[in-house]
Amino acid sequence: MEKTLYLDRVNSPEDVKKMNTEELKGLADDIRKGILNRVNTVSGHLGPDLGFVEATIALHYVFNSPKDKFILDVSHQCYAHKMITGRKAGFLDPIDTKISGYSNTDETAHDHFKIGHTSTSISLALGMAKARDLKNENYNVIAVIGDGSLSGGEALEGLNNAAVLNGNFIIILNDNEMCIGPTYGGLYKALKELRESGGTSSNNMFKSMGYDYYYVEEGNNTEKLIEMFKKVKDTKKPTVVHIHTLKGKGYEPAEKDKESYHYALPGFLNSNGSSGIEAETYNSVTTDYLLAKKQTDNRIIAISPATPGVSNFTPEFREKMGKNYTDVDIAEQHSIGYISGLAKNGAKPVLAILSSFIQRAYDQLSQDLSLNNAPATILVYWGGISSADMTHLNIFDIPLISNIPNIVYLSPTNKEEYLAMLDWSVEQNKYPVAIRVPFGDLVSTGVKDTTDYSKLNKYKVESKGEQIAVIAAGNFFALGREVQKEIKAKSGINATLINPVYMTGIDIELLEKLKQNHSVIVTLEDGCVEGGFGEKITRFYGNSDMRVLNYGAKKEFTDRVPLGELYQRYRLKKELIVEDIFALNKVVAMI
Amino acid sequence: MEKTLYLDRVNSPEDVKKMNTEELKGLADDIRKGILNRVNTVSGHLGPDLGFVEATIALHYVFNSPKDKFILDVSHQCYAHKMITGRKAGFLDPIDTKISGYSNTDETAHDHFKIGHTSTSISLALGMAKARDLKNENYNVIAVIGDGSLSGGEALEGLNNAAVLNGNFIIILNDNEMCIGPTYGGLYKALKELRESGGTSSNNMFKSMGYDYYYVEEGNNTEKLIEMFKKVKDTKKPTVVHIHTLKGKGYEPAEKDKESYHYALPGFLNSNGSSGIEAETYNSVTTDYLLAKKQTDNRIIAISPATPGVSNFTPEFREKMGKNYTDVDIAEQHSIGYISGLAKNGAKPVLAILSSFIQRAYDQLSQDLSLNNAPATILVYWGGISSADMTHLNIFDIPLISNIPNIVYLSPTNKEEYLAMLDWSVEQNKYPVAIRVPFGDLVSTGVKDTTDYSKLNKYKVESKGEQIAVIAAGNFFALGREVQKEIKAKSGINATLINPVYMTGIDIELLEKLKQNHSVIVTLEDGCVEGGFGEKITRFYGNSDMRVLNYGAKKEFTDRVPLGELYQRYRLKKELIVEDIFALNKVVAMI
Repeated sequence: MEKTLYLDRVNSPEDVKKMNTEELKGLADDIRKGILNRVNTVSGHLGPDLGFVEATIALHYVFNSPKDKFILDVSHQCYAHKMITGRKAGFLDPIDTKISGYSNTDETAHDHFKIGHTSTSISLALGMAKARDLKNENYNVIAVIGDGSLSGGEALEGLNNAAVLNGNFIIILNDNEMCIGPTYGGLYKALKELRESGGTSSNNMFKSMGYDYYYVEEGNNTEKLIEMFKKVKDTKKPTVVHIHTLKGKGYEPAEKDKESYHYALPGFLNSNGSSGIEAETYNSVTTDYLLAKKQTDNRIIAISPATPGVSNFTPEFREKMGKNYTDVDIAEQHSIGYISGLAKNGAKPVLAILSSFIQRAYDQLSQDLSLNNAPATILVYWGGISSADMTHLNIFDIPLISNIPNIVYLSPTNKEEYLAMLDWSVEQNKYPVAIRVPFGDLVSTGVKDTTDYSKLNKYKVESKGEQIAVIAAGNFFALGREVQKEIKAKSGINATLINPVYMTGIDIELLEKLKQNHSVIVTLEDGCVEGGFGEKITRFYGNSDMRVLNYGAKKEFTDRVPLGELYQRYRLKKELIVEDIFALNKVVAMI
Repeated sequence: MEKTLYLDRVNSPEDVKKMNTEELKGLADDIRKGILNRVNTVSGHLGPDLGFVEATIALHYVFNSPKDKFILDVSHQCYAHKMITGRKAGFLDPIDTKISGYSNTDETAHDHFKIGHTSTSISLALGMAKARDLKNENYNVIAVIGDGSLSGGEALEGLNNAAVLNGNFIIILNDNEMCIGPTYGGLYKALKELRESGGTSSNNMFKSMGYDYYYVEEGNNTEKLIEMFKKVKDTKKPTVVHIHTLKGKGYEPAEKDKESYHYALPGFLNSNGSSGIEAETYNSVTTDYLLAKKQTDNRIIAISPATPGVSNFTPEFREKMGKNYTDVDIAEQHSIGYISGLAKNGAKPVLAILSSFIQRAYDQLSQDLSLNNAPATILVYWGGISSADMTHLNIFDIPLISNIPNIVYLSPTNKEEYLAMLDWSVEQNKYPVAIRVPFGDLVSTGVKDTTDYSKLNKYKVESKGEQIAVIAAGNFFALGREVQKEIKAKSGINATLINPVYMTGIDIELLEKLKQNHSVIVTLEDGCVEGGFGEKITRFYGNSDMRVLNYGAKKEFTDRVPLGELYQRYRLKKELIVEDIFALNKVVAMI
């Protein structure tokens, strides 16, 4: 990478405070080099981090971290802060990948929370400010939040409550006119009015709530920001500083195509922007399905809570869907209420949402959707054990959804099953349905699936055997087959292989029948085993001789642990599972 | 009850439309008689329903339900609507108690959802409006929401999204200047400014988001409301009608003491307002603890998400706590972020929240709190199987909390245990802790509990026996003891009785040891058994000879089913449980 002479001199915020205007400018350039270098090497949030460089420098120039507390919403703008607070090794060659891409209290005293979900900074910071006041301490507490994150319920709840704190509290509203994609709702009209009036519009939601309010048009001008931050430093009341920044600033492709460069993958600097991959994926078959359905049925509607990239709801797809597409902004709770209303009034909503983010809407899944038996479809993406950051684990959706009454949670194992389930869900009008979109490469049987999924909790016996039954759900169906083969190889036993299909209920008739000639049941699920699907089966057999072994992830927050290591830890390997089975001494080997 | 000559003539909204001004006034009086009569007989939401009588009459006078759709937030203002839409039998003598106190689609085509949690009406209604537009239908969709409910994240998310609907959408903001108790946050300053300016303030958050906005000062004046509703009927864009109503209107004690009369119990009309009960309760020992703690430690802080009555955080208690008390308004998500911030910055937050409403904050419990190991204390109230309305079941908190990493969920069985846990939680700084406050009459052992709760997942063996072990949690510990006695009586067997204390983990050492001289384990939990605590124990024994029977509620939404009937259904009776145990043929009777 290019030289970083100014950044080289910065080992702590103290070093920033000593710099003159020219040097601060040089530092901003160097930090951008670091951002591009890291993202190009290990991937990361590019656009939002590039846009917040000057503001971060100005914050560290004016305030005294860690005495003054910065809480950065969702961490998408934390890279500059990390570089200034002793963690530039995560950005310069050779990149230290132990440094994470998120706020992380294990790394430094300058971070106060581990953060990776949006819209939390105001609430967390307000708690810190109130604790400060209870302890009669004296310093600034600063919550940074993007305009995109502001639409999230927790942020708005926090904004309401923080307005009445009787003490220092500063919200930096980092307005880059974007979420991951565009922003849509009424809040953004309000912010636009403020931007266009240079912050002078008399119609000001922040002032109306009681906040002092300041506006900085040049949100990428370090001097202007320093001036403003000096002005609000040590304020004695809740204050909003609204700064207008440029997402992607300093890297032209990201300035131009803000959505595509929100997050970038390794090697993007030398890529032409197209992956060149034309193969079918679970995403492509989904968008194909929705576009085709729209041709014949105007009641279909696709919905995203501001994460269109997850489901490949590209600008082109959105345009084709037209009024049959809604981006509700970051608003997971509302998204569930919204699809409930759509479904109850005869539309056919299909919501695309990340496993990790559906956590935001448990109560709405229960009350708005399931209690009302609203026949909406929810596609849950990325569900499964992974090497993700601890803030983005996707292992809790089965415990979350499978213990809510009424809702049907389906776990397809291949393309044909997935599409049959999706179409069944869209066309039926009895149940709320969630489908765990398979994760990874598309698997195709080449044979159309004609299963009637309205026969709830009817498992599929894929191959009938004896002594041992392997019940392998979704992503782990392939592992189940491997286990079956391994059992055969090791003992000659033909184990039964079952695809349970439903994460929300058990096939009592089948489980009862298995008692006749099986003594061991193995369940496999690609998620947290506690509270999950396998435990339902174990409970069923609690009063019987049947041995049941449940496999899945432990209840724990793992942080960028390699997948192989996790599989080893959870014994999610055919050899280990078979070892466990035979350790039971309940099965009779035939060889 | 007094005669209701006008209400007697109303069997559907059509009958309201035929009435003249004088008759509508008579109808309002009659509806109030019905409200008072029902609440005095079966309990219910008094103040909010009294305040919304005229608005309901005006809505039915102007709009055409059920073609036009009314969605009433949280249902606290639904009584007048129920009386007008064919359900006055629920309010007049003899009261038909099959009619519920909430919006209920099973009762009528005039309700569109089953609703009992707050802040959902805008999202649900927006979905209906969008479905209408997709189907090219033509009618009004009207979301009614109280000022108190407006602070909830889902409502604010919905408000943002609804602003950009390109079609008819009417929000009636029923502003009675109250939540259950007072309102606090910045939103309420904004609403006050609008009220005090007669809706003319240039600083208008609704207009800034793009809404048409209208204000009606006399929100209990049917004529004025009719005039306004006629004006906005068939509007082609999102519109807010802000009406200023009087909570408790027409019943003087409720007008004066709005908080106490938000909800009233049977017989309140003849009560002097004091229950006369001076006995200790779990609530009284909690508030005593907090007040005493505040004397010695200014870092203690009690928090309520706008439900102070649940924990008996009375106006007097709040005043005594002073700045060591925060009501965050209806904002469950924010409340968890807030206590996380408080705890991480050295304060000692104690949040009091209903089991049913903690459902709102799953993601915050996971990310803001548990991932950060913020040592906050959460008191979960009313957890347990009950005859509650389907919207207010309190059986899902164990599946919800017990499958989140890091957090410790304690289930005390008596006063001394509860207080010891509370104090341990407040004083420790390692874990997020939730405590399931026992439900029902206070049980006291009279002996101070000196357990060290930092030894996580250490169960208490209350009495050591053999063959059968009963693991009975929290509210069901007494049932466990009964089962133990019944076993003894029926077979002479001395069963082991265990108080598991921790809902979030298992005592592996103890469970392992039980294998030596036990063949049957029974688990009892006062909540949904699916995804709950007992299943963790069953999974542990999955690879062994041990028989395990799990007792608790089925995964289902029950609606005002008598408790005895539920206990029968779930076999939560000593005779039934013992019958199940001996049906296993695994235990050797000694007599």
